[in-house]
This record gives sequence, C-alpha cells and structure tokens, in this order.
Amino acid sequence: MSSTAATDLIFGLTRVVGLPALTEQAGAPLGAEDIAQIVTEADRFCTEVLLPNAAAADRHGAIYANGVVTTPPSYPASYAQWVEGGWQSLAAPEAHGGQGLPASLWIAMTELGMAADTSFMLGPLLTAGAIDCLVHYATPDQADRWLPKMVTGEWTGAMCLTEPGAGSDLGVLKTRAEPLGNGKYALRGEKIFITWGEHDCTDNIVYLVLARLPDAPPGSRGISLFVATKLKEDGTRNDLRCGGIERKMGIHASPTCVMLFEGAEAELVGEPHRGLNAMFAMMNNARLGVGTQGVAHGAAALRLAESYAEMRVQGGRPIAQHPDVQRMLMEMRAITLAGRLLALETALCVDRHRLLGDEHAQTRLALLTPILKAWCTDRGVETASTGIQVHGGMGFVEDTGAAQMLRDARIAPIYEGTNGIQAIDLLVRKLAKDGGAEMRVLLDEVRRLPDPRLRTAADRLDTATTLVLDAQGRDAEAAQSVAVTYLEAAGWLLGGWMLARAAAEDGKAYGALAEFYLRRLLPRTAGRIAEIEGALAA
Amino acid sequence: MSSTAATDLIFGLTRVVGLPALTEQAGAPLGAEDIAQIVTEADRFCTEVLLPNAAAADRHGAIYANGVVTTPPSYPASYAQWVEGGWQSLAAPEAHGGQGLPASLWIAMTELGMAADTSFMLGPLLTAGAIDCLVHYATPDQADRWLPKMVTGEWTGAMCLTEPGAGSDLGVLKTRAEPLGNGKYALRGEKIFITWGEHDCTDNIVYLVLARLPDAPPGSRGISLFVATKLKEDGTRNDLRCGGIERKMGIHASPTCVMLFEGAEAELVGEPHRGLNAMFAMMNNARLGVGTQGVAHGAAALRLAESYAEMRVQGGRPIAQHPDVQRMLMEMRAITLAGRLLALETALCVDRHRLLGDEHAQTRLALLTPILKAWCTDRGVETASTGIQVHGGMGFVEDTGAAQMLRDARIAPIYEGTNGIQAIDLLVRKLAKDGGAEMRVLLDEVRRLPDPRLRTAADRLDTATTLVLDAQGRDAEAAQSVAVTYLEAAGWLLGGWMLARAAAEDGKAYGALAEFYLRRLLPRTAGRIAEIEGALAA
Repeated sequence: MSSTAATDLIFGLTRVVGLPALTEQAGAPLGAEDIAQIVTEADRFCTEVLLPNAAAADRHGAIYANGVVTTPPSYPASYAQWVEGGWQSLAAPEAHGGQGLPASLWIAMTELGMAADTSFMLGPLLTAGAIDCLVHYATPDQADRWLPKMVTGEWTGAMCLTEPGAGSDLGVLKTRAEPLGNGKYALRGEKIFITWGEHDCTDNIVYLVLARLPDAPPGSRGISLFVATKLKEDGTRNDLRCGGIERKMGIHASPTCVMLFEGAEAELVGEPHRGLNAMFAMMNNARLGVGTQGVAHGAAALRLAESYAEMRVQGGRPIAQHPDVQRMLMEMRAITLAGRLLALETALCVDRHRLLGDEHAQTRLALLTPILKAWCTDRGVETASTGIQVHGGMGFVEDTGAAQMLRDARIAPIYEGTNGIQAIDLLVRKLAKDGGAEMRVLLDEVRRLPDPRLRTAADRLDTATTLVLDAQGRDAEAAQSVAVTYLEAAGWLLGGWMLARAAAEDGKAYGALAEFYLRRLLPRTAGRIAEIEGALAA
Repeated sequence: MSSTAATDLIFGLTRVVGLPALTEQAGAPLGAEDIAQIVTEADRFCTEVLLPNAAAADRHGAIYANGVVTTPPSYPASYAQWVEGGWQSLAAPEAHGGQGLPASLWIAMTELGMAADTSFMLGPLLTAGAIDCLVHYATPDQADRWLPKMVTGEWTGAMCLTEPGAGSDLGVLKTRAEPLGNGKYALRGEKIFITWGEHDCTDNIVYLVLARLPDAPPGSRGISLFVATKLKEDGTRNDLRCGGIERKMGIHASPTCVMLFEGAEAELVGEPHRGLNAMFAMMNNARLGVGTQGVAHGAAALRLAESYAEMRVQGGRPIAQHPDVQRMLMEMRAITLAGRLLALETALCVDRHRLLGDEHAQTRLALLTPILKAWCTDRGVETASTGIQVHGGMGFVEDTGAAQMLRDARIAPIYEGTNGIQAIDLLVRKLAKDGGAEMRVLLDEVRRLPDPRLRTAADRLDTATTLVLDAQGRDAEAAQSVAVTYLEAAGWLLGGWMLARAAAEDGKAYGALAEFYLRRLLPRTAGRIAEIEGALAA
C-alpha cells in the first residue's frame, strides 16, 4: 500500500511532467512501472525506517558534549539502512558509482524522506549538494578520492558558508586559507549554522568551505572553495572541530553546528577566487531540495490532520465533516499537491538539461527555482499551521506531532537563501535579465490550458511583470519592495497550472481538487497583484 | 520613556476611540493625562518586572511533580508585585473592591502584559474572566466570600470547561455534580487544558467548573456552573488535584493542567442547567482579551525585529534599510497598530454599555468580538512568523526570542473558541440574526471616511455580506465553508478603517503607516471576497 504522497508522485512523474517520454528520448528509457517501483520502495523505506522514530528523535534531539555530537539513538542504524539501500546513490553520476537516475526521482525521494523525518533527511540532502558541487568542480583525482564514499553515503558532506558576520552577504566572510607549500592549505575561521557539521552516523565528513586566500581581493570576488575532511588521508583527525550546536525552534535532531577550523588541512577546489560561483551553482539544486521540503512539511501535516479529523467527533460527527474543517483539509490537499507537482516540473528541467542537453530547460529551471523555493516553503509553514488548527487544542500539545511540523517547517523559508533573497533573485537575475521573456514563454504555456480562470490570471501576471520590470528600471528599491509579493502571485498561478494539468490527465482523481484550487486559491494571484499595483501607484 | 506600544495606546484611547469624552458623559471623567499616567505605569510594570524574566521563564517552563506545579523562579515575586501594584483590580467593580476603571484600560494593560510575558499574563487574564462571570452570576453572599480576594489578585481564578471528549462541543461533557444535602455539591470528573489550574503564586485558587446535575437533560441545556476552591473555607484542601501538565509548543511557563475533581465540594452558581449561558457571557469578554493577545504577540515580535534589523549589517548597511526588510517591518507595524486600535474600539463598546447603558454598543460588541478574536490572533501568528524571517537564521535559534513569539502566539487562534468557531459565530449568531443590519451600520461608518479605497472595499464587503447570507439561507454548509474567509475580509477592512481614523487625527505620526496599509494590505479585503465568490459560484 503506497501513501497518498507516493501515489501522487508516481502519477505526477509519469503522467503530468512526462518522465517516461523524456528518458526514452534520452535513450535510457524508464517506464511507468520502473518509476512506480522506485517511488514505492522509497516510500516504504521512509514509512518503515524513518517515520516510526521521528517523534522520539525530535524529543531526544541532537546532543553536544566536548566536541562530540550524538544524534538520536535510532539515527546511526537508520543511516546504515539508508546507505545499504543505496538511496544516496540514486541520482549520482554513474562515473562516480551512482545509479545515474533522473533528478526528478531524487526529488520524489526528498519529499518522502523530509515528510517522514526532516532532521534525518537533512544529512543526505546536504551530502547530495556536496556531491553535486564536487562533480562539477573537483579535479578527476579529487573526485576519485572523495566522491565514491560520498555517493554510497559512507561519508557525509557539509556546506560551510555562513559566519557570524556573513549570512546573506557572504562577500564579507573572514575564514582564511594559508598555503602550506605542498599544494594544500590551512583553514582558520569560524563557520556557523552548519547542518550535520558533526554527527555519529559516519566516521568521516567532507566539508566544503568558503575561505579567502592571502592574495584575495576584498568582497565576493575574493572567495575560494576548499575541501577539508574530518579524517585526513592517513586516518588522523584534521584540525577542525565542532564548537557547539544551536538550540533551535525545530529540527531538533539535526545538529546545527558551530564549526571551528583551527589550521585544518584542505585542498582548493576549482579556480582561486571563484568559490562563490561554484557554491551558487550547487545552491540552485539545493534550493530545489528546500522547496521540496516545504511540500513535505505540508504533506506530513496533512497526513496527521486527516487522521485526527476522521477520528475526532464533535457535535455528533467526525470533525472531518464540519464545513470549515473540510475547507482547511481541502486547502492543505490542494496546496500540497500543487507544490508537489511544481517541484517535479522544476526537477524535470534538470533532467531535460542533463539528459538531453536542452538549454531552454536550463533557462526555465533558473526561473522556476526561486519561485519553487519560496512559494513552497511559505506554503509549508502555512499548511503546517493549518494542520495545528485542525487539531484544535491537541495541535498545540506536542504529543500529536502537529506542532513539530510547524516547528520543523519554519526553517525552510530561511535557509539556502531567505525567501526575500529568492524574490530578489527572481526579479533581478531572472526577469530583468531577459526582460521577462522566459516568464512570458511560461505564461503562454499556462494560457494554452482551456480554463478561462487560468488564462485571466496569466494575463494579469503578464501585466504585473511589465509593471515590476518598469519599476525595476526606474526605482530598484521600490521594485524590490514588491518582489516577494510578485513571487507569491506567480506561485499561486503556477500551482493552479499544475493542478489543472493533473485534472486534465485524470479528472476523476484530481478534478475536484483542481476545481477547489481554481475557485478558492487561484484568486490569490489577482489579490497579490492588486497589492503590487497599490504599492507602485503614483 | 514609554514604549511605542504605550504611546500608541494612549493616543488610541484618547484621540481615536474617545475614552475621555465617554467617561465625561458617564459622569466619571478620565482625562488624557489620567489615561497617559495609567498606561505609562502599566508599561513600566511590564517592561521592568515581566519582560526581563520572560525568556528565562520560557526556558525553565512550568514543572509538575506529584500534584504540585512550580512556576519559573521569578513568577511568585513578580506576581506579588502584580498584586501589590493593584493591577488585578484595575477594571473590577468598586462594589467588590475594584477601581472600576474602564474595560478599555484593562485591554491596554492586557496588551502590554501579554507582549512582555504571555505565560505570566495568562494567570491574571483568567482571573479577570472568572471575576467577570461571578460579578454577574454569584449571589451577594457568594460574591462577598470570593470576589474581594480575587479582585486584589490574592486568589487566582481558573476556568474548567474542556474535557477529553468535549472541546468545541461542550454539550457532551461528563463531569457530575452530586448534591451533598447541605446545599453544596460534590464534583467528580476530569477537566483538561486548564490554564493556571495549579501553581505556586497564590495559596488559593477559585475554579469555575461546568458539570451536570443528576437530573440534567442531555446536551448543552443540562450543564450547570459550579465554583470549587482549592482551599475550603476551613482552610483544608478540597478534593481536587492537578493530574499533570501538558508539554506544549509554546507558553511553556503557563501551566496547562489536567484537573481531577474527586468529590470536590462546590457551590452552584446561577440557575441550574444554565451554566453554558453564564460561561458564554463571560467568554465574550475573554475573547476580547485573546484578540488582544494576538496584537501583543505582533507587537513583541516587532520590537525584537526592529532592534535586530537596526543592528544587523549586511551589504554595507543595516538590514532595516533593505527594501524587503523594510516591507516586512512596515507590514508588522501596520498590522499591529490596526489590531491595537481595533481592540480598543471593541473594548470601548464594553465601556459604552457599562457606563452609559448604551444598548447599541452591546450589539456592536457582539459583532466585533469574533472578528477581533480571530483576525488579530491569525495576524499575531503571521506577524510573529514575519519577525522570525527578519532575523534570518538567528530567528530560528531560540536565543533571540523571535522563535518564542511564534511558539507562544500559535495557541491564540485555538483557545476561547477556535477561529473557525468565531467565524461561524459571526455568520450564524451575528450576521444571520439581524440579516446583516448591524454590519451595514458599521460599513456606513467606514464609508463616512473620505478615502475612496476604503469606500470601495466597504461596498465590496456589503455585497459579500448579502452573498454569504443568501448562501446561509440556501445551503448552510456552503456558507460555513466560507465563514473564515468572510471574517478575514472584514478584518482587513476594519484594520484599514482604524488606521485611517488614526491618520485623520495625527497625519504626521500615523499618515505613512495608514497609507502603507491602504495601498498594500487593504486589497486583501477584495482578495478574500474574490475567494468567497469563487467558492459560492454556481
């Protein structure tokens, strides 16, 4: 028995975004049955291995003492099953020992894993990001030394970017790399907010670290990328350690580490002073993963709310039959499915580019990524909050798990670039770059669907695109003050587009949900645009 | 130096809602200076006594062991200062030892206290609710025995309504009251979610308990109201005890108790089988207090976000100067001020009714209460969440206090009747009761302001009122499925109305904030109405 999420993911991959056709075109056909089998297996792993321990893991949390981080008791064994199942290698390149499966399947796995236990799944997600970066920037020799163990999951990866004074503005970071004379470097500095920076699930950890070379120009053009490993090649400990973990609102079982580099031996990866470019390239895929987290939090909150609403009787009938609770559940379902399908649509751009060399897919990916990251993570927070509301007073009590969903979901709009940063990325680096051309290509696709409500909303967003681009040319600060609102308008439209496509494929299964969305949620596109017009009115 | 909140409250009371004129008319004049002095003193108490201990109180939490509840170490002393300062007696009737000051001043105190430390302030708020109920329903003899000590705050009050099987539907509650023959009763049953049900700040606690008499008809018409005290009149312990406290998402320092009544001696208050009426009468005022909590959570989140945004530098300037952070801060300010003034407007209805016997004020109060409760508490959650976002990664870390605001705020949309219940109350018991007449009187007042944007929005809500009332007559379930959306539309309109009135009084101080609201937030009224139209479309 697959979960609703797995069923939807299989349907989305095979019938909505068309993964089988793409893989056939690429000469490595993956049929509907193959896809169903992989997603079902992934679902089984998440439901049987991760989910049963997630609440206890949250209560236990990650624990720090004297540089050592202990994860919840279930984690080392669950992680061993993760490695044994070959899950980390799913979409990693075959050249490095991976299975080379499509990125969209990894996104399906990401949703299922994050919904089952966000704190756990963050480890594999960060490792996948590190793999992605090294595949592109490591020399063949470096790749051979690091990637095989990372691809199996025997070693995890960690991203060391943020410093106490350098968050969204990485240009001012201070960690220094001094040449040791043997081609290697010594890293000195303090990094904060390092997810899974230290843990007890693997012996070794590969750190991707942004730092400055002695001759580095100031600002963001003077940042280089290094790799340091927890264990050096001779098996001894490198000069780096965890200085503590944060006490956070949620994801309690995911250790968020202060990492102290105290002369750690490291290698330069990629060109000197070009580290930020390498990191941004990797970050785009990471943002796709974080957007998917938002979907997962909604899905997990929905699963809890549905089961509570069926069981809880008030006024002589289960609350699932009360009109306002029905409304909440329908909103949760419609938003979750919209985000799920939008994540697959975005992931398929990665596959179209990788497997077919389709350059337009790359442009589309660049446009969709900030929308997916910000819209889905904001919706994840909202949906988790609605899930609490369905539970009434029990939602505020930690026992039901509903509160954990909101606590865990709240980080996703912040990390991998805050949602405000995503909105400015959309406006400045995506829309303004091509004068809105790719957005208009996308809107034409939306308008091709027969529903007049979608066409009207797409027309409104088209006009709003002109409006914000004009503002950007005239008064960039004014334009940036509506960037988040514009991104939201686009997100609500694209969610409707995905649901309408699902309903067109299978009206019996998805028609009612799509209709609910088009009636009750799509108006938010016009609503947000009215706010933009109000803000930019003379 | 008063806080921004105190300055706004003084301005709101004296110049926007017109408390001085009302008190003069009532023959007990309270001038602008008196009001300023009281609010400034209240602000000082909250800022100097409560606020410095609030974060530590959250970390410590309330602790349960063997029937005894220990509050954070600072609480007993802070509570003693609360009593000594006479704050509990502020708006209590003079006949019972109170100061008889207006309810709107108590609401100002509630906002300041809740913003400083929600967990602490819940104790006094519940006591005030219990006083309110007993003033109306206790016999003179009962009132003399209980009220004087409650009015000083030497005894606290607790409301015992909810049971494991009876939440929003109190009609099915099971606690039983058996006559003891001496005019007293023995209570037996289990009550849950009892705020400040047990604590170490006072010796005695007065419990208002809903229970069934032996001859009670089934359902909500068979529920009576009883009072049991923790200490009986001879000073011995009554047969009731705390069976445990909940592990909650927030308000960790407020003990949320399971209360076990094991033959507790109690007195009937009011008529047999009419307990629910008494409780609902009291609850209306409690809802005004909970709506004010939503304002307080936004205000507290804003205070933290403003100070962080001024201090945190990214890209060479404080983030408070980044356009999207400015937008977030302006939203937080505009929404908080709108809610603050709406709470005062609503509280003034209580005063107009109490002091002048104005019956229309009672009708207006009934209409505004569910809107205030639901709209302000939903905004409190959103604003607290925006406050986290302003902090970036630091917002998710517990040290800054931003996360605590969201954790504490999340209960307010749930208790004292979920926001879904408020919306149905608005639709069924307020709008449908008079065919929307009082809402239209209110909309006429809104239309009297010169801003065309407000007039248009009021016209839209007028039409939407007809639409939902028609639906209610035709298909009550369909109408109830848009009740929350209707309430939100009304809330966004009334917030704009309050800000426009503030700007009309002092354009220099409040004009920019009102303009921001009317441009960027008022469109949400039309947006919500579009959702209603979509939902109810044939």
